[in-house]
Amino acid sequence: MADLAVIGTGLIGTSIGLAATAAGFDVLLVDADPEHVAAAASLGAGVPGGAVENLGTSAPLAVVAVPPSAAAGVIGQCLQAMPEATVTDVASVKGPVIEALRAAHADLSRYVGGHPMAGRESSGPAAANPELFRGRSWLLTPTAETEPQRLAQVARFAEATGAVARTVDPASHDRAVALTSHAPQVVSSLMAARLAAADPGLVEFSGQGLRDVVRIARSDASLWSDILRTNAQEVAPILAGLAADLAAVQEAIGGDDGQAIVEVIRSGNVGSGRLPAKHGGAATVYVDVPVEVPDSPGALGRLFLAAGEAGINLEDVSIEHTIGRLTAIAHLQVLPATGDALRGALLADGWLVLE
Amino acid sequence: MADLAVIGTGLIGTSIGLAATAAGFDVLLVDADPEHVAAAASLGAGVPGGAVENLGTSAPLAVVAVPPSAAAGVIGQCLQAMPEATVTDVASVKGPVIEALRAAHADLSRYVGGHPMAGRESSGPAAANPELFRGRSWLLTPTAETEPQRLAQVARFAEATGAVARTVDPASHDRAVALTSHAPQVVSSLMAARLAAADPGLVEFSGQGLRDVVRIARSDASLWSDILRTNAQEVAPILAGLAADLAAVQEAIGGDDGQAIVEVIRSGNVGSGRLPAKHGGAATVYVDVPVEVPDSPGALGRLFLAAGEAGINLEDVSIEHTIGRLTAIAHLQVLPATGDALRGALLADGWLVLE
Repeated sequence: MADLAVIGTGLIGTSIGLAATAAGFDVLLVDADPEHVAAAASLGAGVPGGAVENLGTSAPLAVVAVPPSAAAGVIGQCLQAMPEATVTDVASVKGPVIEALRAAHADLSRYVGGHPMAGRESSGPAAANPELFRGRSWLLTPTAETEPQRLAQVARFAEATGAVARTVDPASHDRAVALTSHAPQVVSSLMAARLAAADPGLVEFSGQGLRDVVRIARSDASLWSDILRTNAQEVAPILAGLAADLAAVQEAIGGDDGQAIVEVIRSGNVGSGRLPAKHGGAATVYVDVPVEVPDSPGALGRLFLAAGEAGINLEDVSIEHTIGRLTAIAHLQVLPATGDALRGALLADGWLVLE
Repeated sequence: MADLAVIGTGLIGTSIGLAATAAGFDVLLVDADPEHVAAAASLGAGVPGGAVENLGTSAPLAVVAVPPSAAAGVIGQCLQAMPEATVTDVASVKGPVIEALRAAHADLSRYVGGHPMAGRESSGPAAANPELFRGRSWLLTPTAETEPQRLAQVARFAEATGAVARTVDPASHDRAVALTSHAPQVVSSLMAARLAAADPGLVEFSGQGLRDVVRIARSDASLWSDILRTNAQEVAPILAGLAADLAAVQEAIGGDDGQAIVEVIRSGNVGSGRLPAKHGGAATVYVDVPVEVPDSPGALGRLFLAAGEAGINLEDVSIEHTIGRLTAIAHLQVLPATGDALRGALLADGWLVLE
């Protein structure tokens, strides 16, 4: 008997197989496309497991890793074909999956919704790797029907891949990801799409701010189309609100209504301050210490080493490049209490501290 | 005779005074508020210069550092009060300033529009510093009337502060900053404002993508209200387009039109790929090497030093934090040809490389 079956051997499914294998589990790999199974098996993610219909009692756990719109169907198949197994999935939308299962009278006592929050900028089997989940949150969304030992079983498996398991109710999950992931994806993609349509000369002077706003616009198109449609109920109202807000700002700009614009930017100040700090503590405002860095191997290393030797922990780091210059500016974010000490230590070490 | 007069001693004006003083220039400081002048003078940005009306031939260069909506008026005053001086400014919108000067029959032969592209997230006199412009672009927007030696004079001054002077026509400048700076500011602020209005529990699982999108939402409200209104002609159509795009995506999501959403995300893929790479070359796709980093002083330093010792230059760096974990993930961006070498060197040095 294997330890688990992975159904769907794309980026996430193959990575789960690799992580589980690395943790010592025996993994069965299942996919509608036998070539996908062969590719995942050749990477070391497990062994071919045949068809879902024949899984039976071959594993006590099934992890369904298919796109959100297909998840409910495949989860239902697994619950039927594997009468004793716990079934979980990785879809980034949970409510509609549960609703569809309930409508199909599936055995929800054995289903534990899951959502490993691993990066989605990369895709394809080449990007699969056993460490994809390490250090990331893996959200679990049990329902009233979920048996507690099933939840514990899936949480243990998530932790075995190196992830941090956290429980959240399905409706809150879908509202949260609509606000903090799905709507930002649309906003970023639409802003970036404006660049695609523009005269190249206009894009030449783009700075760090734009680069940050459009970073996630590199995401996979078909996966995101699926995610957004599956979470339509939660995402659509946010997009409608944003469209109305944009129209209001446009009107305020045209009508020279300065106070209205001030209020929008101020609300943004408040909202950006509400993001969780690292490690989930209360949001902390860091001090930015910008330092000029020559563009040569090891320069950043020497800079960070200098900070470390001063006993100062860097909370965050970003690198700013300027057109036409062979130097960059490293922005070191530190706790306010240590900002002056860092500046002093770097100046003493010969660095050009810019602020 | 002084070398220049700075009119307006806020963050940018005071920083210009500090940079010019550091470069050996004698600076006169002028502001409608004598307390602002005193504060800037006490920081070492120059000496009080009295009223604009009395500047006369006291300096060959005037740098007007007031908000965009006030720029044309003050530039006009300077051109009148200083009959031989070259006058420049720092407003981030240029066309409307030039139009207003032309309508007032100002002597445009002595005016050189300027826009130092220094960060605007911080504000206030305490943030003023002499290195604010070092390594940054300082855009100059001469008109047909501008005398070439006036342009050269302002370019020399900009370079003396450490900036890189670049010439661009005013209309292209305003279109470019509307697209690459002003519209992204509105988008980021509106997305962040949605967080301000939301249940705190929903924001708890926010990841790096959202953090990037809303980073510039911390910007100063009254300055941005001024910038957006002054560049209304260029910004408003972009916002209108974005609002229409958002409504279209909302409709596609609700109507389950997957192909329409795929096309939007794909356009975003193309647009984000059009951003200039560092140093203004053609955009390069870097390879991301994610590495687990313990949360202790010097850990990042040891990581970057290991990369440097392997002779590999880091093109970009970002740090990802996960709720509830005392480790972070450093994303090292390197040229594709060096990705495998970096992975190998870090693994050999005992680092946990995640992909």
